[in-house]
Amino acid sequence: MAIATVVERIRTTELSAHIGQQVRLQGWLHAVRRLGGVTFLVLRDGWGTAQIVSERPDAIEAVLGEETQPETIVCIHGLVVASAQAPGGVELHAPQIEVLEPVSEPLPVLIGKRELKAGLTTQLNHAVFVNRHPARRAIFRMASGVMGAYREYLSSQGFTEIQTPKIVASATESGANVFAIDYFGQRAYLAQSPQFYKQIMVGVFERVFEVGPVFRAEPHDTTRHVNEYVSLDVEFGFIENHFTVMALLRNVMAHIFTALAERYATEIALTGATLPTVPLTIPHIHFAEAQELILRLHGVDVRGEPDLAPQDERWLGEWAQREFGSDFLFVTGYPMVKRPFYTHPDPARPAYSNSFDLLFRGTELVTGGQRLHRYADYLAALAERNLPTIPFASYLEAFRYGMPPHGGFAIGLERLLMQLTGAPNLRLTTLFPRDLGRLTP
Amino acid sequence: MAIATVVERIRTTELSAHIGQQVRLQGWLHAVRRLGGVTFLVLRDGWGTAQIVSERPDAIEAVLGEETQPETIVCIHGLVVASAQAPGGVELHAPQIEVLEPVSEPLPVLIGKRELKAGLTTQLNHAVFVNRHPARRAIFRMASGVMGAYREYLSSQGFTEIQTPKIVASATESGANVFAIDYFGQRAYLAQSPQFYKQIMVGVFERVFEVGPVFRAEPHDTTRHVNEYVSLDVEFGFIENHFTVMALLRNVMAHIFTALAERYATEIALTGATLPTVPLTIPHIHFAEAQELILRLHGVDVRGEPDLAPQDERWLGEWAQREFGSDFLFVTGYPMVKRPFYTHPDPARPAYSNSFDLLFRGTELVTGGQRLHRYADYLAALAERNLPTIPFASYLEAFRYGMPPHGGFAIGLERLLMQLTGAPNLRLTTLFPRDLGRLTP
Repeated sequence: MAIATVVERIRTTELSAHIGQQVRLQGWLHAVRRLGGVTFLVLRDGWGTAQIVSERPDAIEAVLGEETQPETIVCIHGLVVASAQAPGGVELHAPQIEVLEPVSEPLPVLIGKRELKAGLTTQLNHAVFVNRHPARRAIFRMASGVMGAYREYLSSQGFTEIQTPKIVASATESGANVFAIDYFGQRAYLAQSPQFYKQIMVGVFERVFEVGPVFRAEPHDTTRHVNEYVSLDVEFGFIENHFTVMALLRNVMAHIFTALAERYATEIALTGATLPTVPLTIPHIHFAEAQELILRLHGVDVRGEPDLAPQDERWLGEWAQREFGSDFLFVTGYPMVKRPFYTHPDPARPAYSNSFDLLFRGTELVTGGQRLHRYADYLAALAERNLPTIPFASYLEAFRYGMPPHGGFAIGLERLLMQLTGAPNLRLTTLFPRDLGRLTP
Repeated sequence: MAIATVVERIRTTELSAHIGQQVRLQGWLHAVRRLGGVTFLVLRDGWGTAQIVSERPDAIEAVLGEETQPETIVCIHGLVVASAQAPGGVELHAPQIEVLEPVSEPLPVLIGKRELKAGLTTQLNHAVFVNRHPARRAIFRMASGVMGAYREYLSSQGFTEIQTPKIVASATESGANVFAIDYFGQRAYLAQSPQFYKQIMVGVFERVFEVGPVFRAEPHDTTRHVNEYVSLDVEFGFIENHFTVMALLRNVMAHIFTALAERYATEIALTGATLPTVPLTIPHIHFAEAQELILRLHGVDVRGEPDLAPQDERWLGEWAQREFGSDFLFVTGYPMVKRPFYTHPDPARPAYSNSFDLLFRGTELVTGGQRLHRYADYLAALAERNLPTIPFASYLEAFRYGMPPHGGFAIGLERLLMQLTGAPNLRLTTLFPRDLGRLTP
């Protein structure tokens, strides 16, 4: 380790601040190209990649040898040189290389090129390894950026972060689509969402948010569903109605995209993501008007349907783009019949709800709304749906002893990244996806 | 709502910035005291409490009436006045009160006084409600502060936040103590820790952290165990050995306590927490030396025991306090026999490990260490323990294709708060605890 320890290690992303200096890099041997008398190496560390150029291939060969595969852990010492041709405008010259941990087995998938050639199944089977690919990991770096920006904005607005239990005694919203657990001989379930707990916590902190896993036992096999994902949840009190919630969501979204643009330029470039502009006021349309609009524009009569189909959402997304130049559209007032029992009805038109979906580029991204807040209303809502009150006794305690009008929303983290990066499958924006057939890696 | 909407609502914590002004508060009617001709009200909102004084009890009675219980949601308009006797040095005079949502049922537990009189079981049964108590919620506000400071420090050091799956195909560290799930007819488990995934992710981001739930099916019924808790996990590469990990942990701890001191003074006062000072270098002692020390100081021969008992930890904690004035002590080099298979042995004394526990005030708070990083070492470690390699195939892929020396640690969030606040039971620093007998609320 004589070479390695002479100079402080820097990150690949710090190279341009060290032009003219001797530095030390450490990381994975990402790629090797031998062109005539010149050898190009790419070193990848936890933050980026760096190009290393040697005009003494024999010296490189002496260290790396024939059997050294990419992903070998190396330490490279050299001179930082500005170079217009190098990626990032800077490269390392006259390298001295030390192998820290050799890799000698051929790799299951080649990740040293800009494009990944492997098919979806191979990528997912080898996600442990394939997530090292710069474009793959850029997605998950952006995911960390989304979570960070989300928390940052909400904290600035007096929201408190909570962590609520994921093992629950009864299904959150309905009896269906929950995973059952053997809990010391009792039957328990994995939480479908933190809905009940985040509402309860409005009674404690007024404004709360949570970032955590949710579990859906839906037997879907689509490109847009996985069975465990990360939900960004918000709930807060003293709202006027669902429009107060929509105004907050607009600001959360704006902050997320501003933060990504400012802090994740490299990742955006690597993933080909296109960031939207969030209008100061996101346009909104009532569910019933949206159905009328679809009839008028496309001649398809979906009036009377209790929900929007994916095609309806695409048409509405196109309309918002054309009419308002907006990637976003709120659809409000979904019929009560399709919303969970805690949904607050529209006082003026009780068959419709004070709820909304946020469409992003023609696909639903966020669901939210105002909730019931009076104990008597909960009793009535449960009775109307023939649901017993006993399994909900603790939840109802919150409303029994004083709750303000409140509401909230939930953003699916992987879904947001999918729509942002244009990934063809939600599994590709999920670190280690769980689906009908996949429990590993 | 005529009164309510004249003036912008402020938070109780903002009162002192508005002395001499008319303001509007909203929240819960926390307490009512009638003393002669004066009525004192306490309003609680999501952030704090405020005292409201009225010399016209008849006007108060006219609004609140006899049947109005505490926790009624109110809006109070009044004049902010500096007052040496008032809590926080400020109170509201000449209030105009509006009831937004009345509570008429008697409360299950009285939460309007500084001290909670209810027993543990009652408190836990009514946690939905009891967590509104200012001293109770202060604990969970501090929890949010710990998470925030933790992420803040790690982000500043180039760590990336990850969210790893909680539904896993095989038990993380051993076959025991995992909750089984029915996963579409397959058997799956709840993750005991993100250990495997955070190590895998060192191959992607080099430095990672995660804040998330972990699940332990240990049939313990003690004051220091629950079956679901929040784990603050760290893992990072290119370490020298476990001392590199300990140095990071020291800085994480120092940042957490500095942030709490700066930002959570009210919560610290409400919970009676005593913040430690984190020494620049936390003292450390090797496991074998610790056993010798216990023999010397207390005449108890625990040499040959593979682990420390709680009494041993208390003695060591006292010794660190006496010898170094430190609330913290690292014990290093725990015997390999008691550590999981991925633990890195001490190269000089292979029966001992490159691992550590951090004792805080004589109780284990954090466990961590260096991990194996070579594929061949994993194969040997699994073989030595008669464990098959197949269930670990994906995990092993990370080591097969290049991993640097790495290590990490995990802090139990609720455990940290318990030791900080001196709570007699871990359940009291858990928002909605899960234990052998408790699945609700």
